[in-house]
This record gives sequence, C-alpha cells and structure tokens, in this order.
Amino acid sequence: MTKKSANNASLHDTISVDALSTQPFPASQKVYAAGQRHDLQVGMRRVELSPTRTASGALEDNEPVLVYDTSGPYTDPNINVDVRTGLAPLRQSWIEQRDDTEELAGFSSNYAQTRDRNIALEALKFQHKRRPRKAKAGANVSQLHYARQGIVTPEMEYVAIRENLGLEQEQLARYARTQHPGQSFGASIPAFVTPEFVRDEIARGRAVIPNNINHPESEPMIIGRNFRTKVNANIGNSAVTSSIEEEVEKMVWATRWGADTVMDLSTGDNIHETREWIIRNSPVPIGTVPLYQALEKCGGIAEDLTWELYRDTLIEQAEQGVDYFTIHAGVRLHFIPMTAKRVTGIVSRGGSIMAKWCLAHHQESFLYTHFEEICEIMKAYDICFSLGDGLRPGSVADANDEAQMAELRTLGELTKIAWQHDVQTFIEGPGHVPMHLIKENMDEQLKHCHEAPFYTLGPLTTDISPGYDHITSGIGAAMMGWYGCAMLCYVTPKEHLGLPNKDDVKEGLITYKIAAHAADLAKGIPGAQWHDDAVSKARFEFRWEDQFNLALDPDTARAYHDETLPKEGHKQAHFCSMCGPKFCSMKISQEVRDAAAASEAEQGMQTMAEEFRQHGSELYQPAESTES
Amino acid sequence: MTKKSANNASLHDTISVDALSTQPFPASQKVYAAGQRHDLQVGMRRVELSPTRTASGALEDNEPVLVYDTSGPYTDPNINVDVRTGLAPLRQSWIEQRDDTEELAGFSSNYAQTRDRNIALEALKFQHKRRPRKAKAGANVSQLHYARQGIVTPEMEYVAIRENLGLEQEQLARYARTQHPGQSFGASIPAFVTPEFVRDEIARGRAVIPNNINHPESEPMIIGRNFRTKVNANIGNSAVTSSIEEEVEKMVWATRWGADTVMDLSTGDNIHETREWIIRNSPVPIGTVPLYQALEKCGGIAEDLTWELYRDTLIEQAEQGVDYFTIHAGVRLHFIPMTAKRVTGIVSRGGSIMAKWCLAHHQESFLYTHFEEICEIMKAYDICFSLGDGLRPGSVADANDEAQMAELRTLGELTKIAWQHDVQTFIEGPGHVPMHLIKENMDEQLKHCHEAPFYTLGPLTTDISPGYDHITSGIGAAMMGWYGCAMLCYVTPKEHLGLPNKDDVKEGLITYKIAAHAADLAKGIPGAQWHDDAVSKARFEFRWEDQFNLALDPDTARAYHDETLPKEGHKQAHFCSMCGPKFCSMKISQEVRDAAAASEAEQGMQTMAEEFRQHGSELYQPAESTES
Repeated sequence: MTKKSANNASLHDTISVDALSTQPFPASQKVYAAGQRHDLQVGMRRVELSPTRTASGALEDNEPVLVYDTSGPYTDPNINVDVRTGLAPLRQSWIEQRDDTEELAGFSSNYAQTRDRNIALEALKFQHKRRPRKAKAGANVSQLHYARQGIVTPEMEYVAIRENLGLEQEQLARYARTQHPGQSFGASIPAFVTPEFVRDEIARGRAVIPNNINHPESEPMIIGRNFRTKVNANIGNSAVTSSIEEEVEKMVWATRWGADTVMDLSTGDNIHETREWIIRNSPVPIGTVPLYQALEKCGGIAEDLTWELYRDTLIEQAEQGVDYFTIHAGVRLHFIPMTAKRVTGIVSRGGSIMAKWCLAHHQESFLYTHFEEICEIMKAYDICFSLGDGLRPGSVADANDEAQMAELRTLGELTKIAWQHDVQTFIEGPGHVPMHLIKENMDEQLKHCHEAPFYTLGPLTTDISPGYDHITSGIGAAMMGWYGCAMLCYVTPKEHLGLPNKDDVKEGLITYKIAAHAADLAKGIPGAQWHDDAVSKARFEFRWEDQFNLALDPDTARAYHDETLPKEGHKQAHFCSMCGPKFCSMKISQEVRDAAAASEAEQGMQTMAEEFRQHGSELYQPAESTES
Repeated sequence: MTKKSANNASLHDTISVDALSTQPFPASQKVYAAGQRHDLQVGMRRVELSPTRTASGALEDNEPVLVYDTSGPYTDPNINVDVRTGLAPLRQSWIEQRDDTEELAGFSSNYAQTRDRNIALEALKFQHKRRPRKAKAGANVSQLHYARQGIVTPEMEYVAIRENLGLEQEQLARYARTQHPGQSFGASIPAFVTPEFVRDEIARGRAVIPNNINHPESEPMIIGRNFRTKVNANIGNSAVTSSIEEEVEKMVWATRWGADTVMDLSTGDNIHETREWIIRNSPVPIGTVPLYQALEKCGGIAEDLTWELYRDTLIEQAEQGVDYFTIHAGVRLHFIPMTAKRVTGIVSRGGSIMAKWCLAHHQESFLYTHFEEICEIMKAYDICFSLGDGLRPGSVADANDEAQMAELRTLGELTKIAWQHDVQTFIEGPGHVPMHLIKENMDEQLKHCHEAPFYTLGPLTTDISPGYDHITSGIGAAMMGWYGCAMLCYVTPKEHLGLPNKDDVKEGLITYKIAAHAADLAKGIPGAQWHDDAVSKARFEFRWEDQFNLALDPDTARAYHDETLPKEGHKQAHFCSMCGPKFCSMKISQEVRDAAAASEAEQGMQTMAEEFRQHGSELYQPAESTES
C-alpha cells in the first residue's frame, strides 16, 4: 500500500455500511427507557400493531410489543451513524466519573505502537482514535469488583432496565401472568430485574457484563443463567478470504439480526486494523481469541509462541477495547494424550495450537502458568475471561469424554483464581453432543465451575448434515439454553465448509434467536411469551402485516407470503395460499368462536346450533370475492 | 378440457419427472438385501468412501456406509421409471398369495365411477389403471390381524431387514458397540430387529406398517417407537395454486430427500386424479385427510357434509390405495366450547370443519358416531387410522390445554375400538408447544393411547418466527422423537405463509431428517451413530469428497465449500476457507495425534516433545504450496 493510495483511496474515504443494515424495522420505532441519570437511556424496539376488527365490526386497539434490541443506533433514524467516526461513547462519562482510570498517552503494547508508526498502513486505519484508558495503578475497574463492594453501577442499572424491556414491575407482571410457568432446573429467575439483583448476580459470579473501559460505545448487556438467553455471532476474516469493510458490514448486520455479542475471529491480514474498525462501530461487546493474532505474529509457528508475545497481544487488544478474551488456559499437558484416540482429536483452533506448543516444549502452557498475570491485565481494563474449551468434542463420538471433562474441571479451578482477582469470568462449552448427553454438560459445568455463566457452541446434535449445521446445532442450543446456558454461540450453514457470508450470518442468527427465545419460554423468563402471543393473535385475526412485522425476520416472512399471493389485497385476506379460502381453519375457527361466544351469552348450546345454521352461510365469503 | 386436448395434450403425453429427482446420489449405489423369498429385495443406499492416507503414507480402506433409503426405484440407474405407467407393484404377489382379497370389476364408490365416466377429464387421467382389490367378504386383511394370528408377513420381514440396513446381527452389533448408549425413556429398542419382533410390536399395537392392498407399489416401512424415527412430508395443491404434475414431482422429490411417508393434502381441483398419479408413482405410503375431498364435494359448505358422502370418499380413496387416513373423530361436541377462549382457537383444518358441522347440527360428528363402520372399511383394504388431533394447539399459549387433552383421551378410546377390529392405528399430536411442555405430550399420549405410535407435527417451540418454522419446529420434533414419537410430520419454511415449493419441501425434509436422526442417536437405535462417525472421520482426515457424499444433502455441502474454494485441488486441501491453512485445528490435531502416537509406541513424553520439535516444521506445509 503506497502513500499515494493511502491518500487517494483510503478506507476512511470509501467505507460505508449497506443501507439495508441501517433501515428501521417495519412498523417499528426505536424507543428509550430512562434510568435515574439523564445519560442513561436504554434503547429498544417498539412494534406498532393494527387494531382488531371484532365480530360486531368495531375496532379494538392492540398494544404495541416491545422487543429486546441489539442493533444500537443503527436502527434509530434520528441518529446518523458515520462508520468513519464510530459510534458515540455512551459509557464515557460513567467510566470517567468513577475516577479510577486514566487516559494513556498512547497504546502501551509494542505491536500497536509499531502499527501506529507504520505509514504504509495509513489507508487501512480508523482515523478517529480515542486515547486508551487503563485503571490507575492498583485499581480494579471490573464490574465484579464494584459489585462485591456493593456498588450498583450505571451499567448494572442499564441491563436491569433492558432485561425488563423498560417496563414497570406491574406492567411486566401483567404480561407474565398469561404465560406458562417455566421449568428452570433450579435457576433463580426473578419476576422483575432490579439493579440490585444484577449487582448481586455479578457479585456471586453468576453473571457478567462484558464492557471494556476502552469500548465505551457498547450498550451494556448481561450474560447469566437468570437473565434472557443471549447469542453470539462469530465474524472475522481468514487468510483465504474477506476484507475490513466486509467484516464491519457483517458486524453491523449481525447486531441487526440479534447478536448480543460479536466475536472477531480474524486470522488473516491486518487483524489489528480490522478490529479497530469493528470495535469503534460496535454497539455490542466484542470478543476475541488473542492467541490467533499472537500466532499470526510469529508466522503461524505454534512452537514459537511466547508469553511475552502473547502478553503484548493481550495489552494491544485490551487498549483497543475488546470486551472478552477467549483463553484456552485449561489445555493442560497431561490432558493432551487423552485426545489421541478420539474420532476428531482437538477441534478448537486455540486448543490445538496450545496442545502443539505444550508438546513441543513439554511444558504446561503459558496461559496456564501465567494465569494470574493475565488476571492483572483483565482487571485493569475490565475484560471478561471466556475460558475456552480447547478440548471440546468435535464429533458426537467424542462427546462428554475424559479429555473434555478433565479440562472442564481445570476451568473451574481457574474460575476461582479469576474471582480472587475480581475478574468477570464465563466458561465455554461444546461442540458436538447427542441430545441425551447435553444436560450432563450443563450439570457438570454448574458443579465444577461454581455457577459461572456457561457459553456454548451449539452443541450439534448429529454430524451427518454439513450445510445445515445451524439447524443440527440450533436443536442442541435451544436445549442447552433451557438447561441453563447463558449465551449460545451461533453456528452458520457454512460450518465445517467455509467462511460465512452475510446471508449465512443472518441465517445463523435467526436460528439462534429462535433457540434462545425457545429457551426463555421454557425457563420461564417473565414476559417472554408476550411476543409469541402477539404473533399468534395477529395470525388468528388475519392481521398479516402485524404477523410479518412481529416476525424475527419480517422481510422473509413477507417475501414468502407474497411469493404466492403478491397482491396488496391479499394482506387483508382471511386465508393464505396454503389452504385457500375454503379450508382455512383459522377462519372457520373464528366463526365457531363467534357462534360459541354468542351462544354462551344468550341461551344454551341447542339454540346456538340453530343460530349457527342460519348465519353460517353469511359468515362464509365465497372464494371468488376474497380472491379478487 | 375438451376431447381434443385430451388426445393432443393429455398429461399422459406430457408428464415427466425432473432429472434432478432421479439422479443417483454421488458415490452411491443402490443395493438390495435379500429376504427369504426371491421377490423380497430391500433397497438401500451404499455410500462408497475413499481410503485414508496414514502418517506413514500407506492407504487404509474405509468401509462403505449403508443409509436407509426412501427413494425407491427412482435412484436405481438399472430401473427406468416411467411415471405414465407407474412403479412396479412389488407387493402384488404377496397380497395375492394370501388369497384373502379379490379383484373388483371397477371402483365401488359413486364418485370414482362418475369421474371414470367423465370423458372431459380424460386428459388428466392416469391411464394404466389396475383393478382395485378388496378383502373377501368377512376377511380382515390388516397387518395387525395377521400379526395377532402369529403370522409373519413378507411385509414384516421386509421392514425388519430395512431397519437393520440389511446387516447381519454381528455386523450391526459391531457398529453399535462404539456408539453412546441411548436414553429411551422406557422404550424397548432391540439390538437387532427380527421379523418376529416386528410381528409382536404390530400385534401389541405399538407399531404399524401402512400399506393398503391397493398400493402394492409401496416399499413396506414401519412406524413405531422401537424403530427408527420416521418423517412425513405434506404435499398437495390448494384452490389457489399448483398442478398435478407439480404434485407428482414434489412427491418424487420428497422421497429423494427422505420422506418415509407423504401426505397428499390437496384441497383444490381434480383431487381424485391428482391422487391417482401420486399413488401409482409413490414408493412410500400415502396418507390423506378424506374430509378435505368430502368438503370439496359439497362445495365447501361444512354443514352439508353427510356420513354417506364421507363414506363414499373413504371407499373411493381406499380403492385408489391410500395407506392411512387422518380422521378427526376425537372432536366431540362438548369439547368445542373449550376452544373458545384460546389465543388461536382450532387450527386443524379437519378439526375446524368438524367443529363447525357439530355446532351447526348440534350432534356428535359422523366420524365419531360411525367409527365402527369406518373400521370395517379400514380392515377391508388394510388402511391405518391416523387419529387426527383436531384440537391441537396452534400457539404456544394454547399448548397442553383442556381441549387438547380431552381430545387425546378420546383418541385413546377410539384406539381401543380400532384394535377390537384389528385395524392399525396411530395418533396425531401437536402443534405449538414450548420445550418444557413437550414431554408431557408424549407421556400423556403413551398413557391414554396405550402405546399406539405417536405422529406429531413439530411441535413448534415458539411462535415468533414465521419463515423459519422448519427450525422452530425441528427443535421440538427432535425432542419429541427422543421422548418416543414414532413419526415426525415436517414443517417447511412456508408454514403459516404459503404453499411450499420444491425448495421448501427439501428444506423441510432435511431439517426433519436431522431431527429424526438426532432422536435415533439419543434413543440409542443400534448403529445409528455409524453414519455420524463416518462423516466425522472423513472430516478429520480431510476427505472432503467423502464428507460431501455422506451428507444428508451432498449437493449443498459441496456447493457451500466450493463457494470460497472452488478448485478441484482444494478437495485435497488440509484446510478450508473458515480458518485457512495455518489455523486448521484438524490439521494441527492430526500432527499432535501422530506425535503422541509415535511417542506412546517409543519412549516417554519427554522424548516425544523433542521429536515433535524437530519434525514440526516438516509436518507443517507452507500456506503457499497448499493453496496452489
């Protein structure tokens, strides 16, 4: 990249986000629920509904439905997001007011300094840099540290409001009353989330709020078994494909379709610059696997990795604002031979890299031996541990085996050490697991990891369907979420086959939002069924537009309907192309209900039958007229 | 339609099946396992694999994998299927040899006779008609009747071989040994399926073989909790869309992608002729809801339905060869008001039609009052009852409610009556059910329906994602299958929105094959994991072609891979575009394993580490060379 091209065609000049990613959702408004501070405004989406026409012809209003919203300012038409300058730092003042951090003159890591000085990279750089912050000497700036001191932070208040969809306790109770009581397997889901409850859950280690002080753009969210089930989307380039602009685009796209966090798993070129663009523009926490970049720095030779190189990478990423680090510190030397007889060996990239290093040096990994030093870094920026499952099973055959369980117990020991440092921690899980062995994963994790939040990839419930692994894993994810898993890492249709594109990201996310919501219904998250009931009522009343607008993916719902019945008039029709007008059970059922209701109010079943016979033919509209 | 067009452009002259539907699967052969009779040949698919290249460079053969195959003769290159003449009647001689049936001069039903005489329909008619058969006076020709007399029919032997994939007991045991023991919730899954076991399960009412004596083209298959989980695909036109040729095409397409049975739910024009084309060309059992056609016959006016009209429809369809009838005989008059307060009332088409009829006449439905006469018809042709759940919940809110459970108990009573007549019977189930309420459905069904097989639609685990209801329901279907459901009725992405096209049929089927297979793994069907292990081993050894060929959908797996790495050379590559060559955990893990294996055989861990360090760089191929 020459200086000329940097001036003339730098990314700063050309980058933009697809308009599709920033359109407001149909019939939706971005609304904000206010906290106690003027600068605490929790965004969510309100879907407006059309009225119901009753049997008598009167119109009855339908309340709008509130939806948890991860898309940040991108879907607020009142905010003009410019990806070249990044999002507004909504947490900046909260961080500053705590007065336990300081602004640095520049990046502390050697690598970041080198990249900064490299003018050949100018064209790729995000230009509106904020100076990095760090805890003052001796300070611990983690939410866990505050929580244990009894401090309720604005971040905690924010997530409490967010989990309640901004509703008052009585309102939420009203929506919760009509839903099925859940089965939560011993979780402690509250009827209403208070900031104090959030604080307490964090203090106990049962929940985390991933938000690096260097990512003040992020909207606080909570990961824990007693809150809504969250989903993560993986993006990132590889040596084979993808560009910075594509990855930023994928991140925005992912938050549109419900990603609660995004992991940037780039392993290709310009990882540092790619990450800067992503973080500055991300309304959700960003996770990484620092080992990937460290390996890039030593030319892909695992044996050449050193603690110093890795440490410098942690600091580099910490000062950019990464909110959680996947660290495979549980891959211990003596566990590695346990994988030798597996069908699929070690399938975690980080796990296999560390296994290779351990074998080559015949030593415990530097992630394990330097774990307390890593804790020191984490607490100076408030980064969460996502303790990686380097030995997770990569096939149904290897599920729940000795290697996996041995590592899980080590992750539990490391959790205790992290907690001694007041570092927020969650635990990664499998992988590939047949349905009947899923619950054991959750039970063992709760037992050995002291209720630290669990974050699993799927699991895939069979290996036989490459190309559809969002589905094989969506099944496992829904069950794992029900059993208590706090965050589900999505799998796209391209899993095992290639790098996901935007369509794959969306397909993976919708699948995982389904899994997470199904889990919330089964666990009994108060008010979770509100959304379902609104869709079903709209469906039953042939409010087609409302049904589309309430769908997780309104565009696809509408397109599928319009494939066979494209005319606008069909959006009023009391049938669809599946059954046609004469066979619509919903339509007949409404007639039955109207008749039954009329009867109940008046006489007995006998009279009702007669009435129905008289009115039946009027209620029925001939097919010709409804189709026109 | 004029006579001229019948001669010049009749369907007989123009119809054909898309070549895509009849191509053999890649690297696959249709193989046949022989039974004791020369004419008992059970078709299945054998997927040939390439050899494994070991660390020493030697080649090790990989055994071919056998796959249960529903596609019949269409994927046998040695058989030239002509849809104008229909499939060969493979069960014809078995039926004839039992000597308890007789050929009729023609159709007995008034409607079929009228259609037959109507020359205006010539152009639509299937022309190679076989004369219908019926039980001799007083005879009962159901498999249940034979089973209870201790007779093992060729059909029973066929399904035993089929369930075992044609393997001998020791071979199957070898594949079963390496798999996880299942959790079957009290099912009685045998290590090896014998014809006698099949007979016994049918005699107990725990399994059914749907095969009308007038559908001798169908390959016997079994539906029962102690056998492989089956899936059904719904096809059929509606008043709004679709043609006969399209529906035949969909049926063949559905069997290609794994439909164990197909339901023809046509509600549009020419239902009689459409059905004839479908049955004559279907290698799998065909189910219908006779009520739909009966309603068409009385112009869509539910109140005008009569027992006589319905009875004539049953006989019409029985003599065409429909293998099972969905009959909503459990919708009793006093259950209907229980649906009045539901969010979505009655969502079953059959259920809502009967509810309307019951209310209009203030009588129990003719399906209920004439149930024993229906049994008489069923046993004269060996048609199974699929006792319909007319009051199934159509929303999460309505799951497991009073109306649903009341109907279920009635279905249990009707099952007993059907069994008194030796009529094979299974029970339909929901619908929309949140995850934590699914098991109650299975438990209640087992309890009230005396272990008759359960056949459920999904259930959908949330209502919020129209356009993705194959996934919301695939989650519920997998769980329901695990809990003991014998057959899963697929849901396509178009559910609630429109009539599925071929792509939707395939997407729905692959999703449900995943669910059914995940259920089989969890239940512990012997040998089920063989397929998974073969895929995973191929994946781990970078045998890309084998991975594609073993996939439920080889075409999509290959296409997704080739999207980013299209060159033929990449099919040999030890990486994919997800991680690129340096980050492939599978590749690193193989190196780790080779090193560990070498070490184990030789010295200790210490020496191994040194060796690994020396050889490491050789094992690693530079990215440039592998990418070329």
